[in-house]
Amino acid sequence: MASQLPVSPLAPKKFPKLPKIDGIGLATYATGSRYKGRDDLLLVRFAAGTSVAGVFTTSKAPSAAVDLSRANLVASKGRAGALVVNAGIANAFTGKAGDKAAQTTAAAAARAFGCAANQVFVASTGVIGADLDPAPLVAAIDQLAADMPITGGDFSAAAKAIMTTDTFAKAATRVVKFGKEEVRINAIVKGSGMIAPDMATLLAFVFTDAAIPPSVLQKLLSESNAKSLNSITVDSDTSTSDTCLMFASGSKALGGAPLRSVDDKRLRAFRAGLHDIMQDIAVQTVSDGEGISKLMTIDVTGAEDDAAARRIGLAIGNSPLVKTAIAGEDANWGRIVMAIGKSGELVERDLLAIDIGGHKVARRGRAVAGFDETPIARHMRGRSIHLAVNVGAKAGKGKGRARIWASDLTHGYISINADYRS
Amino acid sequence: MASQLPVSPLAPKKFPKLPKIDGIGLATYATGSRYKGRDDLLLVRFAAGTSVAGVFTTSKAPSAAVDLSRANLVASKGRAGALVVNAGIANAFTGKAGDKAAQTTAAAAARAFGCAANQVFVASTGVIGADLDPAPLVAAIDQLAADMPITGGDFSAAAKAIMTTDTFAKAATRVVKFGKEEVRINAIVKGSGMIAPDMATLLAFVFTDAAIPPSVLQKLLSESNAKSLNSITVDSDTSTSDTCLMFASGSKALGGAPLRSVDDKRLRAFRAGLHDIMQDIAVQTVSDGEGISKLMTIDVTGAEDDAAARRIGLAIGNSPLVKTAIAGEDANWGRIVMAIGKSGELVERDLLAIDIGGHKVARRGRAVAGFDETPIARHMRGRSIHLAVNVGAKAGKGKGRARIWASDLTHGYISINADYRS
Repeated sequence: MASQLPVSPLAPKKFPKLPKIDGIGLATYATGSRYKGRDDLLLVRFAAGTSVAGVFTTSKAPSAAVDLSRANLVASKGRAGALVVNAGIANAFTGKAGDKAAQTTAAAAARAFGCAANQVFVASTGVIGADLDPAPLVAAIDQLAADMPITGGDFSAAAKAIMTTDTFAKAATRVVKFGKEEVRINAIVKGSGMIAPDMATLLAFVFTDAAIPPSVLQKLLSESNAKSLNSITVDSDTSTSDTCLMFASGSKALGGAPLRSVDDKRLRAFRAGLHDIMQDIAVQTVSDGEGISKLMTIDVTGAEDDAAARRIGLAIGNSPLVKTAIAGEDANWGRIVMAIGKSGELVERDLLAIDIGGHKVARRGRAVAGFDETPIARHMRGRSIHLAVNVGAKAGKGKGRARIWASDLTHGYISINADYRS
Repeated sequence: MASQLPVSPLAPKKFPKLPKIDGIGLATYATGSRYKGRDDLLLVRFAAGTSVAGVFTTSKAPSAAVDLSRANLVASKGRAGALVVNAGIANAFTGKAGDKAAQTTAAAAARAFGCAANQVFVASTGVIGADLDPAPLVAAIDQLAADMPITGGDFSAAAKAIMTTDTFAKAATRVVKFGKEEVRINAIVKGSGMIAPDMATLLAFVFTDAAIPPSVLQKLLSESNAKSLNSITVDSDTSTSDTCLMFASGSKALGGAPLRSVDDKRLRAFRAGLHDIMQDIAVQTVSDGEGISKLMTIDVTGAEDDAAARRIGLAIGNSPLVKTAIAGEDANWGRIVMAIGKSGELVERDLLAIDIGGHKVARRGRAVAGFDETPIARHMRGRSIHLAVNVGAKAGKGKGRARIWASDLTHGYISINADYRS
């Protein structure tokens, strides 16, 4: 069922105002498939020539929607005509019938907008194992498509229509330079449990009017996804359905030579803006982590390489003992040491350094003698907790670094997940 | 502090009666180092020629005790003269001072019993990051050693002296055939949080009077440890201090040709008995998992190989979403599918089969049509939950199998760990 939970204490104060994006049209609908009295379907149409890039769950038992979208990303050579998202039923673990439901839905959108079937992308989120009846989705697509403009629609309604257990709608918007033009990037995301990198019950959709060819768009999305949506964790669980898709309608051309590389200087501002908006929605997602009371930002330095730093950060952010200590406002750096050790990564125990809230707690593999606990205790009472560890790999010469965001682990998480059947 | 928690509902009805073992003497003492009014030190002396084998944490930031015992296992060529265990202070993340404290303690036992310093094994459990003052331990060793018999002592007191947050003392005993002799195996274990394979805040000590050379003893211990203590999980966290040591005093000789292999037929009954007692203490350990309300036994079949099956079982047993579903008495097989998928192991989604409590829930990658939820709901209300999954790898021909034991995740776990500073 839809969330009746109180809004996360870490929710942003207000929802951003998202502008229209040329070449991208949206509509939402209440199909009644599982939720009553709210929109649960998002339909998006794209101008001809729209590029698409995608990142999907690493689950070995992915949903039918993930299978179809992953296949279409290849088959369409990165071109998108439509996106269909439904909330409430994940269409995962539904056998061949699930594949057929996804195909039927995609075919309806292709017919409605006159695009190739392999240019339709689908995403489903909600309960696993329940059959998805495509009929109400097809009917909704037919009705919505009849009067959908090629540009327009309400991103706020779109962010709401894809929610499941989310306690607030999540979106972000930026205006960035793109060569000599200004372009827009809008992003919407949903997810609050089963959130772990690679990826989460997380659906994220990013839209821009910039003209970027599919190969470059894929690299841009992959690199920024790694440092944003793939660097957050709520509960270490990985959904069958995670999907992040980015669409570039191409309304604003770059001019000059064709774009071939993410390192093209004309992309510098766009790349930074994309990175920024992806981090924004990633932090919003973890801020809606089930039962969250505090947001951890974990900075790891001194690791063998960036990948090792990321795994160390995730070992800390995923540790139930660290997470419960944070929830209990206990600056229990012993558990941080434990988590660093269990990561399996190269660390130099007697060079380990830990800071909490910017205060030195441990240096050279042991507690700082007589450190003042007062400012640390004050920091622990806040909503936003900062942990910094230097693991001293390679005799202190390791250059690997990563930043991870994680929720704490509270009674709220247990209450939500011992009751809700997802 | 020592546990004031109610005894786990999964505790065995009574503590077993453990007999003496020839060539092994025990004593316990209240040093007052951290706990008041209870024994917190276990001292064991071994007859000359006692073999020792060991398995330790895989943590990259192990305690000083682990470092020393691991080194002594090599330096002594598998010969033991004494064991010193203290509870309350883990002597982990204590820098060079920690190494020195462990060495000073070991030296005191070597002096007291007249054995080589590298034949002394030490284990420490408790709070991480606090300095361990060796003086009270050394004084206790001196006092106890003065009148310690070479055979004797109270295994029940020993099991109690090594407890930290455990809610009940854990031990097991077996009598098994050893060639033409009968030998004894006693085991004591402590641990209830930070429990995950490879290994846990888990100290386990196994004692026998059988004469088994160190190389064979190590293989016996390693193989049975893999299917027992390394196949349980409470919270996926791995301690800095995990230690499992096995001592064979050699009082009962096998006769005949020297033992060279674990496959020697004369070892068959002993090997089975060791496997049995190790599983017994492993299940007792997870049954004392922090906040446990239900014990999961997870059987995985149809995997690519046994190692893959084990990782799939652990992915299920460690998943917060599966654990909370079990706690909530919800037969939520969708979350089991999710956990199987996130393991990263080879699975054939459309061949997946799941049974709960012996009842068919899913076959061929989807729910069994119209299955009766009543007997499953009844099973879910019990204390002992059985999950069986066949992952259908290699087109259904996969032969890999494993059994994993795991606790559920409850409000009790949060309460214990948001308060207790370990």
